[in-house]
Amino acid sequence: MKISEAFIPTLREVPADAVIVSHRLMFRAGMIRKLSNGLFAYLPLGLRSFRKIETIVREEMDATGSLEIKPTVVVPGELWKESGRWNAYGDALMRIKNRTGADFVVSPTAEEAFTALVRDELSSYRQLPISLYQINTKYRDEVRPRYGVMRGREFMMKDAYSFHTDEKSLDETYRKMGTAYRRVFKRCALTVIPVQADSGAMGGSGSEEIMVESEIGDNTLLLCRCCTYAANVEKAGCLPDYTAQPDTDAAKAAAAGIPPIEKIDTPNVKTIEELCAFLKTDAKSFIKTLVYKAINVELDLSKTPGSMRPEKRSSAAGLPAREAQAYPEAFFAVAIRGDLDINETKLSALLKAASVELAGEDDVRRITGAPVGFAGPVGLGTVPLIADLSVTTINDGICGGLAKDLHYRHAAFGRDFNAWMVADVRTVRAGDRCPQCSGELYEKKGNELGHIFKLGSKYTDSMNVTYLDEDGKNRVTIMGCYGLGLDRTLASIIEEHHDEDGIIWPMSVAPYQVIIVPIKYEGAVKQTADSLEAALERMKVECLLDDRDERPGVKFKDADLIGIPVRIVVGEKNLAGNAPRVELKRRSEKENRLVPVSSIVDEVTGIIQAELAGLDS
Amino acid sequence: MKISEAFIPTLREVPADAVIVSHRLMFRAGMIRKLSNGLFAYLPLGLRSFRKIETIVREEMDATGSLEIKPTVVVPGELWKESGRWNAYGDALMRIKNRTGADFVVSPTAEEAFTALVRDELSSYRQLPISLYQINTKYRDEVRPRYGVMRGREFMMKDAYSFHTDEKSLDETYRKMGTAYRRVFKRCALTVIPVQADSGAMGGSGSEEIMVESEIGDNTLLLCRCCTYAANVEKAGCLPDYTAQPDTDAAKAAAAGIPPIEKIDTPNVKTIEELCAFLKTDAKSFIKTLVYKAINVELDLSKTPGSMRPEKRSSAAGLPAREAQAYPEAFFAVAIRGDLDINETKLSALLKAASVELAGEDDVRRITGAPVGFAGPVGLGTVPLIADLSVTTINDGICGGLAKDLHYRHAAFGRDFNAWMVADVRTVRAGDRCPQCSGELYEKKGNELGHIFKLGSKYTDSMNVTYLDEDGKNRVTIMGCYGLGLDRTLASIIEEHHDEDGIIWPMSVAPYQVIIVPIKYEGAVKQTADSLEAALERMKVECLLDDRDERPGVKFKDADLIGIPVRIVVGEKNLAGNAPRVELKRRSEKENRLVPVSSIVDEVTGIIQAELAGLDS
Repeated sequence: MKISEAFIPTLREVPADAVIVSHRLMFRAGMIRKLSNGLFAYLPLGLRSFRKIETIVREEMDATGSLEIKPTVVVPGELWKESGRWNAYGDALMRIKNRTGADFVVSPTAEEAFTALVRDELSSYRQLPISLYQINTKYRDEVRPRYGVMRGREFMMKDAYSFHTDEKSLDETYRKMGTAYRRVFKRCALTVIPVQADSGAMGGSGSEEIMVESEIGDNTLLLCRCCTYAANVEKAGCLPDYTAQPDTDAAKAAAAGIPPIEKIDTPNVKTIEELCAFLKTDAKSFIKTLVYKAINVELDLSKTPGSMRPEKRSSAAGLPAREAQAYPEAFFAVAIRGDLDINETKLSALLKAASVELAGEDDVRRITGAPVGFAGPVGLGTVPLIADLSVTTINDGICGGLAKDLHYRHAAFGRDFNAWMVADVRTVRAGDRCPQCSGELYEKKGNELGHIFKLGSKYTDSMNVTYLDEDGKNRVTIMGCYGLGLDRTLASIIEEHHDEDGIIWPMSVAPYQVIIVPIKYEGAVKQTADSLEAALERMKVECLLDDRDERPGVKFKDADLIGIPVRIVVGEKNLAGNAPRVELKRRSEKENRLVPVSSIVDEVTGIIQAELAGLDS
Repeated sequence: MKISEAFIPTLREVPADAVIVSHRLMFRAGMIRKLSNGLFAYLPLGLRSFRKIETIVREEMDATGSLEIKPTVVVPGELWKESGRWNAYGDALMRIKNRTGADFVVSPTAEEAFTALVRDELSSYRQLPISLYQINTKYRDEVRPRYGVMRGREFMMKDAYSFHTDEKSLDETYRKMGTAYRRVFKRCALTVIPVQADSGAMGGSGSEEIMVESEIGDNTLLLCRCCTYAANVEKAGCLPDYTAQPDTDAAKAAAAGIPPIEKIDTPNVKTIEELCAFLKTDAKSFIKTLVYKAINVELDLSKTPGSMRPEKRSSAAGLPAREAQAYPEAFFAVAIRGDLDINETKLSALLKAASVELAGEDDVRRITGAPVGFAGPVGLGTVPLIADLSVTTINDGICGGLAKDLHYRHAAFGRDFNAWMVADVRTVRAGDRCPQCSGELYEKKGNELGHIFKLGSKYTDSMNVTYLDEDGKNRVTIMGCYGLGLDRTLASIIEEHHDEDGIIWPMSVAPYQVIIVPIKYEGAVKQTADSLEAALERMKVECLLDDRDERPGVKFKDADLIGIPVRIVVGEKNLAGNAPRVELKRRSEKENRLVPVSSIVDEVTGIIQAELAGLDS
């Protein structure tokens, strides 16, 4: 391909909103252009790399036995109402009314469409498992799209969905997908971090995110310095830096030598910092208590303590089964050591709630009998108390006194108060100890490239996907789902493989494998360049030939910018004599060397095959 | 691929709305399922054929030098406002407001996006021509989607757009595209009819539609029995079945022997049929005159005759240049021989109007001074008269008298009235004579698979796409556009290639090339079937193996239904003895024959290569 015919509008400058390397380089290399905020068009060079990623993903999906299908991008709103996500999804869901007033969505994900398709074909256990995928356009109406295709509004996602009779079968597909994902990213030369992830909101029971490190990552990851432990902060666990005492008798015993609990006046002192200063102590002595409102709680709350009992939904008509059985809202007090933070994702998962949020002022006043700032576990009789493990070790603590300007000191878990539940609900942070090996955890920012999860029966329940089992009984299938963002994968490759001059493409996803740069495209140089291009293309090598009438410096700069892995420079001087030679340089290396024209094709195909084989091993 | 793992849910029955063969067969063969009215999901078998068509289209587009890009499916409404189509497109355009209130469309076509992308990169004539394409999701909110994927709401279209400095360059790309389209359809084994088409509404100046014959076609085509002439009825011409006399002197002379024009009372006689009965004559003696309202007329009307002068738009602010210069509406009388129909597309093109429509009752009364039914060319002083060529030969005609219950007889063109314009505005019909060879024309219904047109500067004017020419002058580019519907191509292949038992796939687009049917999948039969599958797959033959525990009759019926081109039946009896054999049958033939197992792979690969080579020649 002649560069003059390839529509590669390279640029020296970038727009101000291109703040990350991949966005800047994709723009400068003429790979993408912006149509609107969060909407990008791939130009020919960008699309070539994009299609290579698409092919790698397709090959690895096919290898798992998953079958490709193609539902529409615009799907009926009815399906989303069936699943309950028409309301639950939030504003990122692009909802449309068509000319007849019917509701549609521009798919941000496709659980509903796949579930509906499988439901209509499924009758017997003999048909299961089924694993289907698509590679198709998705749309999410992000509030703040940014970082180029890393976080666009429209993007391409590979999403697979599997349907099973039992956990064992789901586990097997889940494992295969995990392996396939690792292979995809290896072939793309990406260093990924597979992390345990929470799947609370998706209703799942096992999930892994495949992350890449990124300074602008959406996710905080906790990694162990000593072992392979890696987890999203939403799910990360840690060893306690204390000896937990969930056994209340033990806790009571530990408090034996502590003075009895005692009220203290704390006028105008509300924050923990103020209180620490006032009492000349530190936050670790403090039992912080927060009141939470949990939404759509599926946990059985019929036997919880407290005078304020949550009520089930009075009318369940038209709602998916799960929602109909849930408590629309329920309040809880959550106590944790003063220097720690509550992890709301863990709390949601613990309560099997759709979400949790801090209770409002009025609710706090109603529940604690005091303004915000004086909640405490001692004497709280209205709502159930959940104690983080950290609280169980405090046998001489300070806590809110359930009245304005009142606190307690010498409060002891097990002696002065008990909890309805003791659980790990803390947010882990750098410096905490690895739950696997007790090594030190550290933090990284990461971007999610893929996510695999066991969905369980969230969608198959609400959308009623059943089959007859071996005994002729009607059963609900369980489901897994597996997403992978193609645009983000592309951008991440550039984030990992570049230098100050431009992109350094791994061979597997390079838009072209070789660029031929004639110093001046005329005479013998032109002839050699042309015949080299023809010879390489006969060997199925993807070649770009810089036929422009530009200075060599400009051509070299562009070749470096667009990052073609192998560069061949054809110059008059090296062609002279009996053994004409050309200059060979790999984009990833500093040095170039002269290679006889007679052996350059072999040399280049050797380089390409070796690199591809290394990535695909 | 084992059929038990291929998710091919074949059916014996079809839904009532599947009225055409391709819809029925795609549904029965498990190729598609309906998600909603006009929204279809491709299941694995359907998608395999679909992807093959996509690959053929991509290869042929690449061969023209067109470059693939990928804009978004959801595009900013602003671009559509720039081009003027935000308002002009009608209700089939799916318009959306996002969460911030910004306007978007789900692309039904992509002139705007491509034009905007090229505009932003274009500076010099040296960059032209540019030809770009995409194969991407389109959405049209059709009022009545039907016939399965033949006329769905969401579909995949290949759309290409080319940009040029001059007509010569546009012509060249237009020709290349025409050739590429013929190759695409030949490789898909489709018999197509390229027809001259009108491109009035698109503002073009040369266009060809590639049609397939179809009983449910949207288009009426006129074809010549003697030569290759083929045209859409909207554009079809014909030889006059009369000697036209656009020369008014000649017309006047021809009327020399005719009695003078004379008023006749025609109480309660309004239609031509009634009048023919009343005057005992036939429709050919009648000069039918209709009043038309033309919208957005770009023709210069400053010198038209008539007392009612159309006015230019008073304020042109914010409108594209073309619309700002046009007459928002203008009225015309159009006269034609009584037995003929006016072709509104020809009339629009003649007037350079966005559209034309029959004037309402009030306008007719205002313009003709009479109720509907008495318009006539004689003495009409209000609006310009356009006479179809057929009128010029009438020198003793009957026509409306511009007053209730009044007609004229002995009216003669050139003597009793003249026309502002004489032109061909008639609708051609079966039986008319071919304009190329005077052979007889006949009609067919057709569906459009592709459409190539020279758009001229319609979009580049309104969206201001300019470049500097060799002299440093700013010029507007001209444009061509080239669409091809992939889903419709797929359905049309099935329409052309099927029998009462199912689909008969051409090799190039078959989802699998070979189906192996073991009579009973066990023992030696299973062994032979498995090793045959492995051997064929090593040769890159796409194989389906029917491993189901079904009766042979069921398997044969399914194999015929899904239409795999080559069937190999493996049975115990034929495997016995020293020279084990299998049964080979092509889907397109009635007969089968026995082939030694030792040579079946060669035999099959030979068949496949020969058929592919035949299609791709």
